[in-house]
Amino acid sequence: MDVAEAPERVVVIGTGLIGTSIALALREHGTEVLLDDRDPVALRLAAELGAGVPLPEAALARRADLAVLAVPPGAVAATLRDAQKRGLARAYTDVASVKDRPLREAAELGCDLRGFVAGHPLAGRERSGPAAARGDLFLGRTWALCPTAATAPEAVAAVTGLVRACGARPLTVAPAEHDRAVALVSHGPHVVAAATAARLEGADDVALRLAGQGVRDVTRIAASDPELWIGILTANAEPVAGVLESVAADLARAAAALRGDVPADGLAEALRELLGRGNAGRARIPGKHGERAPAYAVVSVVIPDRPGELALLFQAAGVAGVNIEDVTIEHSPGLPVGVAELAVRPEAAERLAGELRARGWSVPG
Amino acid sequence: MDVAEAPERVVVIGTGLIGTSIALALREHGTEVLLDDRDPVALRLAAELGAGVPLPEAALARRADLAVLAVPPGAVAATLRDAQKRGLARAYTDVASVKDRPLREAAELGCDLRGFVAGHPLAGRERSGPAAARGDLFLGRTWALCPTAATAPEAVAAVTGLVRACGARPLTVAPAEHDRAVALVSHGPHVVAAATAARLEGADDVALRLAGQGVRDVTRIAASDPELWIGILTANAEPVAGVLESVAADLARAAAALRGDVPADGLAEALRELLGRGNAGRARIPGKHGERAPAYAVVSVVIPDRPGELALLFQAAGVAGVNIEDVTIEHSPGLPVGVAELAVRPEAAERLAGELRARGWSVPG
Repeated sequence: MDVAEAPERVVVIGTGLIGTSIALALREHGTEVLLDDRDPVALRLAAELGAGVPLPEAALARRADLAVLAVPPGAVAATLRDAQKRGLARAYTDVASVKDRPLREAAELGCDLRGFVAGHPLAGRERSGPAAARGDLFLGRTWALCPTAATAPEAVAAVTGLVRACGARPLTVAPAEHDRAVALVSHGPHVVAAATAARLEGADDVALRLAGQGVRDVTRIAASDPELWIGILTANAEPVAGVLESVAADLARAAAALRGDVPADGLAEALRELLGRGNAGRARIPGKHGERAPAYAVVSVVIPDRPGELALLFQAAGVAGVNIEDVTIEHSPGLPVGVAELAVRPEAAERLAGELRARGWSVPG
Repeated sequence: MDVAEAPERVVVIGTGLIGTSIALALREHGTEVLLDDRDPVALRLAAELGAGVPLPEAALARRADLAVLAVPPGAVAATLRDAQKRGLARAYTDVASVKDRPLREAAELGCDLRGFVAGHPLAGRERSGPAAARGDLFLGRTWALCPTAATAPEAVAAVTGLVRACGARPLTVAPAEHDRAVALVSHGPHVVAAATAARLEGADDVALRLAGQGVRDVTRIAASDPELWIGILTANAEPVAGVLESVAADLARAAAALRGDVPADGLAEALRELLGRGNAGRARIPGKHGERAPAYAVVSVVIPDRPGELALLFQAAGVAGVNIEDVTIEHSPGLPVGVAELAVRPEAAERLAGELRARGWSVPG
């Protein structure tokens, strides 16, 4: 099978958000998809959404090219062992957000690691379950692949074909390196968000009324399902602990400086050092989907808050030949106007603002 | 002056983002605005934007109703003293995000506190300076007011009139209570975001390529100007230190559990407890502008990434009589499609999806 080709026949074990989304993406390529899930409701829903047909209990007459284990990190090794015992496929991959420990557990369980390529698509949604699945969930996203010295090249080729069929970009990385990376950019920040949000549990109502966009952003992922995250954090315990210890140390140092354990000048210096490192770290995050964010210009337009106004706005943009790259709408409840912030390529901003003003829109600034 | 009436004549000292935005809002009510800033460039720009005219150096023939001190927290007291010495206005207010310490400093400097109402509009932008100012910046926002036992009722009435003229909602709160609240919902989270972002400064490129939306949200405010925040954090040192100590303690405890200092069951329990408190705290944050977020339904539409497509999309929504409450556009660089997520009132979601599908749009799910 050519790496650029979609697999012909795939088994997906676990029809949650990720498994069902992979299945839907494969179905668009005409791939035959066989679905399995311990939860018969999730399985039926995925099948009804067109993600594939239920995996028969009997032995398969013809092995699949690939089996995707879309189960939590703690279940990967046992699911791999069982699937290999049944001889479901020629190659196997998983989608868990931790790689090193499941690989070690699979080795301990005697799995055949030649046919297994550990994988992790960097995509997700606030919602979970098959109903939230989308065939385009992985378009343009990074998909980490962690082959080891034991992995057969044909297995890597098969899994790479799957990743490309989903429209994602494969990124090869060693398992331990992957786990240290996601501890830094995902698992650690998750616990930090929870600890920050935890402060609000017993806060006065007045404090909450003073909450702005900053604390909303910092704590957004604190709304996630704890059980899902207990599995992830436990499986990546040491790297996550390291990140949390570093953050805690920085916060404790800042608190001590604020309490006055440094000379007067020392406080500003201590804060400048930490906030400066924060600036530098933040600047290293690439834009959406792994590309450096292009520096869009923002054109703000005051809009009446009623149906049809946005259509006129975008129509005007279309007439001006300007592509709107992103839109944010700010509403003011109880007031009949809002502000639309239109992100456009910098060279198009003036043309757009002019066109909108010419059509009577209020474009401040 | 009725509290619902805009003031007739206002001095704005400090023509940065907040001061200039207040001035622009007042100008829309026909208020005469006199501007002052130590930076002549900022002053000239604010005047050119129509925010008002420069404050004459000579004594005012007629005192203003109100002077707004739009300066950093550390400069409020001295600015108030100087303005009162010049007799610029009958009442004074500030906009700093810390209230208790500036009030104490003003008392120490011998300011007349009967005419001063400390204030804090909960509004801001990623950008700063007069060029980013907008007359609608405060529409629907909460604006904290911190009168004390010493404050004259006429001063409170004058400042309340200003707040209403800006379209904001006044919220009376004691200075120390305000400062504890913003430490919880703004200043503390700001340092936490910086400490989390700081971890990325020396990270491998591969780690950054695995960054998703979660870490982007957690660290967004870490991009802010350190000098501005040094002033804020220093002025609110004790309450912020308390928040940082609590977050650091939670993180250290989680790290210790992940390192194995608890029995095997204890790890899941410790994480469940922290993540559960995070869920509870996050759930207490009201929606935008201080209202509980209405539970919008999201309709996802696949759109070709070219001018005019969004216009057609919003036109269809207008035909269906559906108001789009918010829009998010996901782009996939290198691919000719994106996904627009349209937030609408739940009862309108099905109608919108049907209308869009009938017009040939791809509406997954």
